[in-house]
Amino acid sequence: MSSKNRIKCLAFDADDTLWHNEPIFYSAKDKFARLLSRYHSEEWIAQRLDEAEIRNIKHFGYGIKGFTLSMIETAIELTEERITGKEIQEILGYTREMLSAPIELLDGVRETVEELSLGYNLMVITKGDLFDQEAKLARSGLGDFFSKIEIVSKKDKRTYETITAKYRISPDEFMMVGNSLRSDILPVLEMGAVAVHVPYETEWFHEAVEEHELAGKEFVVLEKINLLPAWLHERA
Amino acid sequence: MSSKNRIKCLAFDADDTLWHNEPIFYSAKDKFARLLSRYHSEEWIAQRLDEAEIRNIKHFGYGIKGFTLSMIETAIELTEERITGKEIQEILGYTREMLSAPIELLDGVRETVEELSLGYNLMVITKGDLFDQEAKLARSGLGDFFSKIEIVSKKDKRTYETITAKYRISPDEFMMVGNSLRSDILPVLEMGAVAVHVPYETEWFHEAVEEHELAGKEFVVLEKINLLPAWLHERA
Repeated sequence: MSSKNRIKCLAFDADDTLWHNEPIFYSAKDKFARLLSRYHSEEWIAQRLDEAEIRNIKHFGYGIKGFTLSMIETAIELTEERITGKEIQEILGYTREMLSAPIELLDGVRETVEELSLGYNLMVITKGDLFDQEAKLARSGLGDFFSKIEIVSKKDKRTYETITAKYRISPDEFMMVGNSLRSDILPVLEMGAVAVHVPYETEWFHEAVEEHELAGKEFVVLEKINLLPAWLHERA
Repeated sequence: MSSKNRIKCLAFDADDTLWHNEPIFYSAKDKFARLLSRYHSEEWIAQRLDEAEIRNIKHFGYGIKGFTLSMIETAIELTEERITGKEIQEILGYTREMLSAPIELLDGVRETVEELSLGYNLMVITKGDLFDQEAKLARSGLGDFFSKIEIVSKKDKRTYETITAKYRISPDEFMMVGNSLRSDILPVLEMGAVAVHVPYETEWFHEAVEEHELAGKEFVVLEKINLLPAWLHERA
């Protein structure tokens, strides 16, 4: 027996940890900037949309519907209400595309999750719109590997404490795997549990952390999720 | 001891059970129909918006953001894209009003919930947008009386089974209180638990049930939520 406690529950973030998510938003943002390029430069439009997103998170929360409302609001503002019905219709078309975009799993996710589900109690803890996230999980084909799904509006220490208490999991039996230092790693370490960072190719500006926030923190960084089983084996 | 099992967990629906919700939507619908009345009759507009709502629930889920997208979509369609940026801006204004509308508790809710919280484990089980519902619960001032909050995307038998299993509550220790026969009563009876119907002054057409669906069902109807403590006392 190692002095380290046996992990019983492995929790995974979903967007950009299990499947690609940011590219769907980037693609909509590009189309949006091109659509309005007769009014302003694309860079300026992209910047104003980012600002609207940040400003509106406290009113709309995360997810595609809130993002769409930010696009429409930005379009009206930037065009000083000259935006046409046809252009707004076009924006709603981006939303439909986003909502029905196929779920593309990250490399190695399926095999890794399948293997780990044999030895661990697997959970998904994801932030975002309840309806979007349930639909994505269903379309991902991964649903059966997870015994617990928690969709939350924010991920702070208290969120993780509430979830682990609910399932009677002590922090030292719990491990979180995710791509966001802000949401998946720092609050989990604060709670006294183990966190594994699997960085995604891009990081959403809203989730960025300052270097000093990481000072003295101990967590593991794996380049790919398929390194997880071997790392867990070695740790045990 | 009565032959009836002791209820341990009392779960409440939220919208139109704890606080008024439908009037906020009705008011936005009225304004929407007036806004577009230069294009069509208000009745026709209202009907088309209802249709869009129903059609879009499977894409957007429940809540204010999805409802807003249905208003914008309907506005574009009904005006054959002649809707102006200024009118869309007006619609976004209704959304901001809805999102910040004060929470008005139904008569007797606060006293009833406070009293029952002394003897029971109280839970909220509400359908809708995660972000909206958490915000409303926080603004309601009732949060501290409930030890468990579950926000779900639909309320069927399986939803209730998942929740009760999660908290290790057996169906005969569980009771649901709500205004919707479709969501709060029928699936709870199916699971073998007790359900108490407290009708709201209006019923959302999407939640209506056919009379034959109620045949042979046994549940209690209370006119007001403040009759609940006496009814529970008598039952015990």
